[in-house]
Amino acid sequence: MTYRRPVPLDRATRLLNHGPTVLVSAAHGGRSNVMAAAWNMALDFMPPKAAVVIDKATFTRGLIESSGYFALSVPCSAQAALTTAIGGVSGKDVDKAATLAGLAWIDEPESPAPLVEGCVAWLACRLLPEPHIQQTYDLFLGEIVGAWADERVYSAGRWHFEGHDALRTLHHVAGGHYLLPGDSVEGGAAD
Amino acid sequence: MTYRRPVPLDRATRLLNHGPTVLVSAAHGGRSNVMAAAWNMALDFMPPKAAVVIDKATFTRGLIESSGYFALSVPCSAQAALTTAIGGVSGKDVDKAATLAGLAWIDEPESPAPLVEGCVAWLACRLLPEPHIQQTYDLFLGEIVGAWADERVYSAGRWHFEGHDALRTLHHVAGGHYLLPGDSVEGGAAD
Repeated sequence: MTYRRPVPLDRATRLLNHGPTVLVSAAHGGRSNVMAAAWNMALDFMPPKAAVVIDKATFTRGLIESSGYFALSVPCSAQAALTTAIGGVSGKDVDKAATLAGLAWIDEPESPAPLVEGCVAWLACRLLPEPHIQQTYDLFLGEIVGAWADERVYSAGRWHFEGHDALRTLHHVAGGHYLLPGDSVEGGAAD
Repeated sequence: MTYRRPVPLDRATRLLNHGPTVLVSAAHGGRSNVMAAAWNMALDFMPPKAAVVIDKATFTRGLIESSGYFALSVPCSAQAALTTAIGGVSGKDVDKAATLAGLAWIDEPESPAPLVEGCVAWLACRLLPEPHIQQTYDLFLGEIVGAWADERVYSAGRWHFEGHDALRTLHHVAGGHYLLPGDSVEGGAAD
C-alpha cells in the first residue's frame, strides 16, 4: 500500500518552502546514487524550479551531469539515521542501496532519477544546465517535472504532521542534529 | 538590553541550514526596505555564502543592485504577522518602517544593509554579481561578511528554542501559514 499521491505542479514548490533537508538522487549507466542536501530551495512557481548545492566531490554530481536529471526526496524523522548515513559514505566507494539498511528505490515512470522509498515528498527534476554557476558555486538548478507527497502528512497544499511524528520532515542544523516541525502559526492572509 | 551576539563566520551557514523564512533588507540613497523570502539557502562554508530568490517586482531588488549589499534577518514566531505584512506591501508604495507596527532597523556598522530588530539571527551579505542568473532566475548570491544570533535561542553552533516559544523560527508553507521547529532528533555522528 502506498500513500504517495501526485501534487499539482503549480503547487510543487510548497513541498520545499518550509526548508527541509532533501535527498538528491540520480541514475546513469546502470548506477544509481543518493546524497543528502540541507542546502536546497524552491526557485520559481510555474514552471516550477528548484535549486540545490552539490559538491564536486560527490558521485551523484556526475550522474546528474551525465543523465540531465535528478530527484529530490524529502526524508522524515524515521529516516534521520539513514539520512546521516547517506551523507557519511560516497557512491564512489559503495553501492549505497546495497549497503545501507532501509535505502530502497521507487521506480517512477515520470522520474528518470530514482526516488527514495519511505520519504514523505518527492520532486522529479530536469537539470537546467548552467555550467558557470555549477562550476563556480556547485549550484544546480532544475525544472520540477513531477511531484508527489505522502497523503498522510500532506494534502490540499498543506503539511499536517499531527499524529504522524515519524513522518515529520528533517531540518538539519549540523552534525546529524535535526529539528522537526512542531506547532504552526498563522501570520494573516497575505501571500 | 540586546541578546544579539556575533557568530563565527565559519559557522554562519548553520543559521540557515534548517530552512527558515528570512527577511531580505537593503538600503541605498536614503531609502531602506525589506521583503520576506522563504526561498533562501546556504551556498558555501568558507568564505560563507548564501542564495536568495528576489523577484523583479520587488523594491528591495533595486536597492541591492544599487548598493551591492543585502542582509538576511531570521524572523521568529512573535513576528509571524509582521513577516506576512512585510510580504503584503511594496516599498514602491510605502516606507515599511514608517508604516508597519513592529518594524524597526538595527544599525550595525559591519552591515551596509539594515538588520531587522526583533529577529533571532542576522547575516550581512555582499552581493556576488551574477547578472545572468539574476536576470534569468531572479537568483541572488551573496558572501556572508557578518553573522549574529540571539543568544537565548542559538549558541555554540546549535539552536535551542526550549522555553522560548515566541522566538522559534518561521518556516513558511503558503498563505501566511508557518511551521515552527519543535522537537529535535539525532541521526548519528556523521557530518
